[in-house]
Amino acid sequence: MTKGRAKPATIRDVARVSGVSVGTVSRSLNAPDSVRSATLAKVRAAIEELGFQPDSRAQNMRRRSTLTVGFVVDDIANPLHATTFKAADAELREHGFSLYLVNTSGRAREEADAIDMMQHGRADGLIMTINSERDPTTLKRLAALRIPSVLLDREISLDVDAVLTDHAVGMTQATEHLIDLGHRRIALITGGPDIRPGRERVRGFLEAFRKRGLPVPQDLLRANNLSADYGFREASALLQGRERPTAIIAAGNRTLTGVLRAIQQQGVSVPGDVSLIACDQTDLARLYPGPITLIDRDIEEIGRTAAQLLLDRLGEGRDRPAQRISFPTRLILGGSCAAVGR
Amino acid sequence: MTKGRAKPATIRDVARVSGVSVGTVSRSLNAPDSVRSATLAKVRAAIEELGFQPDSRAQNMRRRSTLTVGFVVDDIANPLHATTFKAADAELREHGFSLYLVNTSGRAREEADAIDMMQHGRADGLIMTINSERDPTTLKRLAALRIPSVLLDREISLDVDAVLTDHAVGMTQATEHLIDLGHRRIALITGGPDIRPGRERVRGFLEAFRKRGLPVPQDLLRANNLSADYGFREASALLQGRERPTAIIAAGNRTLTGVLRAIQQQGVSVPGDVSLIACDQTDLARLYPGPITLIDRDIEEIGRTAAQLLLDRLGEGRDRPAQRISFPTRLILGGSCAAVGR
Repeated sequence: MTKGRAKPATIRDVARVSGVSVGTVSRSLNAPDSVRSATLAKVRAAIEELGFQPDSRAQNMRRRSTLTVGFVVDDIANPLHATTFKAADAELREHGFSLYLVNTSGRAREEADAIDMMQHGRADGLIMTINSERDPTTLKRLAALRIPSVLLDREISLDVDAVLTDHAVGMTQATEHLIDLGHRRIALITGGPDIRPGRERVRGFLEAFRKRGLPVPQDLLRANNLSADYGFREASALLQGRERPTAIIAAGNRTLTGVLRAIQQQGVSVPGDVSLIACDQTDLARLYPGPITLIDRDIEEIGRTAAQLLLDRLGEGRDRPAQRISFPTRLILGGSCAAVGR
Repeated sequence: MTKGRAKPATIRDVARVSGVSVGTVSRSLNAPDSVRSATLAKVRAAIEELGFQPDSRAQNMRRRSTLTVGFVVDDIANPLHATTFKAADAELREHGFSLYLVNTSGRAREEADAIDMMQHGRADGLIMTINSERDPTTLKRLAALRIPSVLLDREISLDVDAVLTDHAVGMTQATEHLIDLGHRRIALITGGPDIRPGRERVRGFLEAFRKRGLPVPQDLLRANNLSADYGFREASALLQGRERPTAIIAAGNRTLTGVLRAIQQQGVSVPGDVSLIACDQTDLARLYPGPITLIDRDIEEIGRTAAQLLLDRLGEGRDRPAQRISFPTRLILGGSCAAVGR
């Protein structure tokens, strides 16, 4: 007998007692045909024993069919996306959903295709990053989307949930740090104006020079693409140029791999020849000797929040207005920035 | 009119002419309900125009329902898995299949769950790496599997397709390279005997000492787990020990991140204080100053081959005996190994 005032049993209790995963309990409730009968019997016995009552969200889910959420990114080998995926996956799994990954390789057609496929019965909702906030094909598909979606670090005119990062504030802070060390020839390599991280990072960079009353080194501003190849090309050109920057901000984790490739190829030393600031706490940024000073953010929290926003939409928040939740960054000092003689 | 002797049109030609992706053409053939009617009309017009005939494999697929293949790994943030996923995904997509990723976090229960879910209607086949070749839960599920599967770098007694790597040969070569540089106190940190990469790497390591008629430094052999934490713990202990190794082979890409964390924390220099060899060409191994000497293999080819084996099974190779295809490694010399005075 359980005590009268005991906390209500959760889906996790049922999983523990029946010796299966939370996902299996959820499928036992929502899609019993997909569960082996011996397992189903164990789960049902545990539900009986614990007096478990599925919550309204679970009941809501029961009316849905796929128990799947689509996760659409350009490159799952990007550690940022992989970490976001894992955090969202863990959160959704707790509620009986699986994540279905689509790797678009950054092609607009694959993106449109993925959106089509998801809403035609593959998924109940979508978590995605899009390659451009201005691509008409993708925007048209998003406008016609009949399942809820959450955008990762993208901002479009449509009324859609999004998890964002305060890139501008973080970039101002990083740039001021370099200015304080005496740097004036600071290069910024990052994404283009068609995605929010690109725009915001440039805005934060300009803001730092404005605050300090210093001229912006316009010739060192390279904001067009987040790819490693772009990072490599621009860093190579900057390091070979006549007026080499004294510091580079590689604003994007793929950018960093490109910039480090250029640094390696040209035999430049960090921070002896050039100071370096990166974004996001990847293995490479953390473990590169120094380590590299970086603008960090809590990627796991971002992934978890994206999943929670979507779960809310699939449940009680069905008709609420769109939410945009923004996360702060913080500067983690490493050993990749040196002072410059004035 | 097309010429009589022209090459037969492929699904790619249909995609090009109709201005959609290969995946959409495939779904137009196999699951027309999932395609928007305007798109379907374009695809059908292109099929008509080109006189396209789906091949027997496509017809075979048509009898299947999910057009999905499950991809089950312990950690998609492992760059090895992410690269394999992308290569398999690209190959499968050419044939109209999507990959469905399950991230098991290395838990046997999640693995068993994923296998269950996949074969209960989620997928036509499976590509997977399992956490242990000896876990009874996973083995039982695999034995009962009624859809074809391909194992990544795992070898079990069941008659199942697998893509493997010649880890032993590569490890012998790497160890001999260190012996040639005068090293005798060589540490190996890698996975345990319950997975093929662990067993084979240890075998190759021992073989190098045997070939050279040298005693094996048994106290430096740490083969129990491929995780970063294990790499960190073992490298920390080895570097703090009284008889420090002069070289470490971090045999696993997660192992490498752990070993480098220990090296960073203890302020050890590479190759000044310790020589280092890693496995697989990750960003970290390539871009770490040196760079790190590594045992490389063609991960993309491995991913592609896994997809091809599965496609074959789903088509004409349905009843063929299991195939195990093994890929070679090659040693890429970096700057992380120094000679030791004798």
